Amino acid sequence: MRQQRLLNPTLRDVPGDAEAASHRLMLRAGLIRQLSSGIYSYLPLGLKALQNIQQIVREEMDAAGAQEMLMPALHPSELWKASGRWDVYGPELMRLEDRNGREFALGATHEEVITTIVKVEIHSYKKLPVTLYQIQTKYRDERRPRFGLLRGREFLMKDAYSFDRTESGLDVSYQSMYDAYVKIFTRCGLQFRAVEADSGAIGGTDTHEFMALADVGEDTIVHCIACQYAANIEKAIGTLPEQRKTDTISPASQPVKVHTPQVTSIKQLSQFLQIDANQIIKSVALHIDGTPVIVLLRGDYELNEIKLKQAIGAAQVSMLSEDDIEKLGSIAGFIGPIGLQNVRIIADSSIMGLKDAVVGANEPDFHLVHVDVERDLGPISYHDVRNVAQGELCTHCGHELSFAKGIELGHVFKLGTKYSSSLGATFSDENGVSEPIIMGCYGIGVSRVLAAIIEQNYDERGIIWPESITPFTIHLLTVHVQDEIQMKLSEEIYTTLIRAGYSVLWDDRDERPGVKFNDSDLLGFPLRITVGKKANERVVECKERRDGSQYERSVEHILTHCHSLFQTGGRSSHE
Amino acid sequence: MRQQRLLNPTLRDVPGDAEAASHRLMLRAGLIRQLSSGIYSYLPLGLKALQNIQQIVREEMDAAGAQEMLMPALHPSELWKASGRWDVYGPELMRLEDRNGREFALGATHEEVITTIVKVEIHSYKKLPVTLYQIQTKYRDERRPRFGLLRGREFLMKDAYSFDRTESGLDVSYQSMYDAYVKIFTRCGLQFRAVEADSGAIGGTDTHEFMALADVGEDTIVHCIACQYAANIEKAIGTLPEQRKTDTISPASQPVKVHTPQVTSIKQLSQFLQIDANQIIKSVALHIDGTPVIVLLRGDYELNEIKLKQAIGAAQVSMLSEDDIEKLGSIAGFIGPIGLQNVRIIADSSIMGLKDAVVGANEPDFHLVHVDVERDLGPISYHDVRNVAQGELCTHCGHELSFAKGIELGHVFKLGTKYSSSLGATFSDENGVSEPIIMGCYGIGVSRVLAAIIEQNYDERGIIWPESITPFTIHLLTVHVQDEIQMKLSEEIYTTLIRAGYSVLWDDRDERPGVKFNDSDLLGFPLRITVGKKANERVVECKERRDGSQYERSVEHILTHCHSLFQTGGRSSHE
Repeated sequence: MRQQRLLNPTLRDVPGDAEAASHRLMLRAGLIRQLSSGIYSYLPLGLKALQNIQQIVREEMDAAGAQEMLMPALHPSELWKASGRWDVYGPELMRLEDRNGREFALGATHEEVITTIVKVEIHSYKKLPVTLYQIQTKYRDERRPRFGLLRGREFLMKDAYSFDRTESGLDVSYQSMYDAYVKIFTRCGLQFRAVEADSGAIGGTDTHEFMALADVGEDTIVHCIACQYAANIEKAIGTLPEQRKTDTISPASQPVKVHTPQVTSIKQLSQFLQIDANQIIKSVALHIDGTPVIVLLRGDYELNEIKLKQAIGAAQVSMLSEDDIEKLGSIAGFIGPIGLQNVRIIADSSIMGLKDAVVGANEPDFHLVHVDVERDLGPISYHDVRNVAQGELCTHCGHELSFAKGIELGHVFKLGTKYSSSLGATFSDENGVSEPIIMGCYGIGVSRVLAAIIEQNYDERGIIWPESITPFTIHLLTVHVQDEIQMKLSEEIYTTLIRAGYSVLWDDRDERPGVKFNDSDLLGFPLRITVGKKANERVVECKERRDGSQYERSVEHILTHCHSLFQTGGRSSHE
Repeated sequence: MRQQRLLNPTLRDVPGDAEAASHRLMLRAGLIRQLSSGIYSYLPLGLKALQNIQQIVREEMDAAGAQEMLMPALHPSELWKASGRWDVYGPELMRLEDRNGREFALGATHEEVITTIVKVEIHSYKKLPVTLYQIQTKYRDERRPRFGLLRGREFLMKDAYSFDRTESGLDVSYQSMYDAYVKIFTRCGLQFRAVEADSGAIGGTDTHEFMALADVGEDTIVHCIACQYAANIEKAIGTLPEQRKTDTISPASQPVKVHTPQVTSIKQLSQFLQIDANQIIKSVALHIDGTPVIVLLRGDYELNEIKLKQAIGAAQVSMLSEDDIEKLGSIAGFIGPIGLQNVRIIADSSIMGLKDAVVGANEPDFHLVHVDVERDLGPISYHDVRNVAQGELCTHCGHELSFAKGIELGHVFKLGTKYSSSLGATFSDENGVSEPIIMGCYGIGVSRVLAAIIEQNYDERGIIWPESITPFTIHLLTVHVQDEIQMKLSEEIYTTLIRAGYSVLWDDRDERPGVKFNDSDLLGFPLRITVGKKANERVVECKERRDGSQYERSVEHILTHCHSLFQTGGRSSHE
């Protein structure tokens, strides 16, 4: 394609609120434009990259035996009411009424629709298992859309749904999608980890998130560089290192009350008493399913609400109000486990064996010091209800855990019978017995993948596209379009490469060379071929975008050279 | 692909409200399923056909130099307010509010969005002309969704927009899209006509509709089989045949009043007076831009409101109320041009020269007969404000015009500066002078094309796919899957054909042969290869769906045979 008329408005500056590198670069390189908050148009180059991702997704889904279909974005509210999600989903679900006052949702996900289709069309075990997928636009009215395509309100998603007779069948379908995801993200050139994730309120057993490692990521991944273990922070577990468990023995035979005026935070207390936070026991006062509960953690740890819910089988967790804390006979900021009546106490294993610890005294401006957990707190049940922190060890291999930020690219999830039960999707087995179909769901944020690829592939000059995704493989740049020799040679090279099946963008614009070189680095296709002053010798300059290597080649060898560089050469269909 | 697990639920019966053949067949063949009125899911085979159409559209758009992009479906209301269409579009435009109460439209078309993008990104004549397109989902809340994909509320459309400096540039862009459309619909195997259409309120000069000829079509096409003339009924013009102009001479020297009790319609009057409708002059009382107007037409013609508006430069036309008719000194059902005061009279040329005609007498239950238009109506201005009717002649070649029903597949339209002016999309010319960009817009109803193809390609047994669109080229059918020889031979043929690049659906279902043959005819792929009782002789039966021809072939010759039948053989990418 010739660049002269290509709609590819590159920018020097971008709005200050474009914080993420991918957001800035997609705006600067003219790949996308914002229409409204979290809503973007794809300009020609952005769409080409997006379509390349779609093609990879489609190929791997098909190879895994999934069948492509396409469902609407307008969903009658009845379906979402039947599943119970019309009320649960909240303002993130966009809603509207048609001209006759019938309510619709704009599909945020398609469990309701696909389950309804399968309910009507599949009745026998003979038609199972089946996995169906679509690549389709989703709508979620995010409270805070940001980072360009990373968190949008209208975005492209691949969503797949598997339908099985048995749990073991689901295991197979799940693994098949898991394997396909590994292939997809690998082909996209991404650095990623499949991490164990929490299955949340849906109550499935297995779930994995596929995370691209990137500083801009909003999720925290805990992983082990010595073994394969990886989980997101909600789900991750670790072992406390031995040295931290060795505490000094309490120098007193019982707790001692000390005056700590207006010292209410761990940080303040640590400074005031000149001790480490790991000698303080934090008491978190909660309202769990209507009952007050105090959760004890070591001062340097954070409560993990999801683990807490799972540990004690709780549904609703909220902070206890100051009034309710006073009803327990305590006061906010000075809560402690000693002397409290009528309240359930749950301890994180991080406080196990602490011998010279500090707790709140349950009266204003006082704490208790020299607390020995075993001696002073009586019988207590321990759970893992903390976020794993720096320094903890891998439970599988004992190596110290690492932490990284990640972008969620995809998600595989065992749904079980949640939707098939509520929407009535059943099958008859060999004996004519009717049972709910067992489901899995599998999502990939296709447009988010595009942004994640850029987050992992850029430098200060612009994007560095992986060969599998790049809008064009080769950028042919004519330095002076007024120069007839340069233009003629460029045309010859362009035709040769196109005929060989390469996708080539030819910068035939009448612009200053500096502008053209800068734009070329910004656009970031794998190979630039510059036709300049040595055109009369039939020599061009090559520059590889990723490593910056530059060298000359005679035109006679340019095709052979491209074949040596690119796997896609001669097979690519776009031009 | 193997059919055993394919989600392809065929039906014997379909809902009675599925009137159109394409609607019935797409339901019966398991291509689509309705989710809500005018809202459909595409099951795997339906999506494959739809994707084949998309691919053809994409290839021809790219070949015509148009650039693909992708715009969102959520449009901020501000854009539609700026163009004035937020109010004008009415209930067909679906609207919603986001969580912050901001109004959005679901894109029914994208002039506002594309013009805004071009306004921001293109400033110089150097970047013009440019044509941009997308293949994207549109939303229109039709008052009466029907005929399956022919008139839906959520549907797939290709919309293109051209941007030019000059009117002559627009002519070139327009012709380029026109030519691409001819290629697209030809490749889709459609019988179609490009017809002149009315440019409506937008006021463009040229506009053509591409119409698939089909009885279910909601549009009437007037065309000449002797020359290339074709127009839709709103735009079509014809010449009255000579013989109809020869009328008897009025036997009286002035009009005569006759009693016609309760005779108010042309039909009643014709019967009552025992005359042909072409001897009656119809008086249509209208309110045009606030003024009462009487339009005269011959009784066998219908008023064409669009022609009327253009003929007299009117904007708003409505029927005159009975009260207003009485204010003119007449009465509904008995209006006539003679003796009316203070009213503008417009005559269609069909009444020119009538010599023994009947008109209303402007009093209850009376008409005037023996009216001579020239003698009795005085000076009168004639216009063409009727729908062309059977028997009229082509104005280009004099041949009698033909009438057909058509489905609108696509539309090419010269917009001019309507949107660029209202939204401020201008360019600077060589002298730095700013001018509005001149636009064209070009739509194809991609999902409607799918339905139109079926409307033109079916018989009583099912669909008959054109090779370019068929979901699979070959249907391989194993009669008895329990028969090891049949299954082994089928597998061999399947592998051979797939390796050769053919798209094959293999019916490996354990069903009765009758069910399988019926389904195969219903699905309607071009070639069926049946592996049955002669499998042990390595002989299979071929059946060509379109002409029904059946013959045997040895397996050794099957590939050569397919190569002789299909152009796509060996090049198809789906399997």
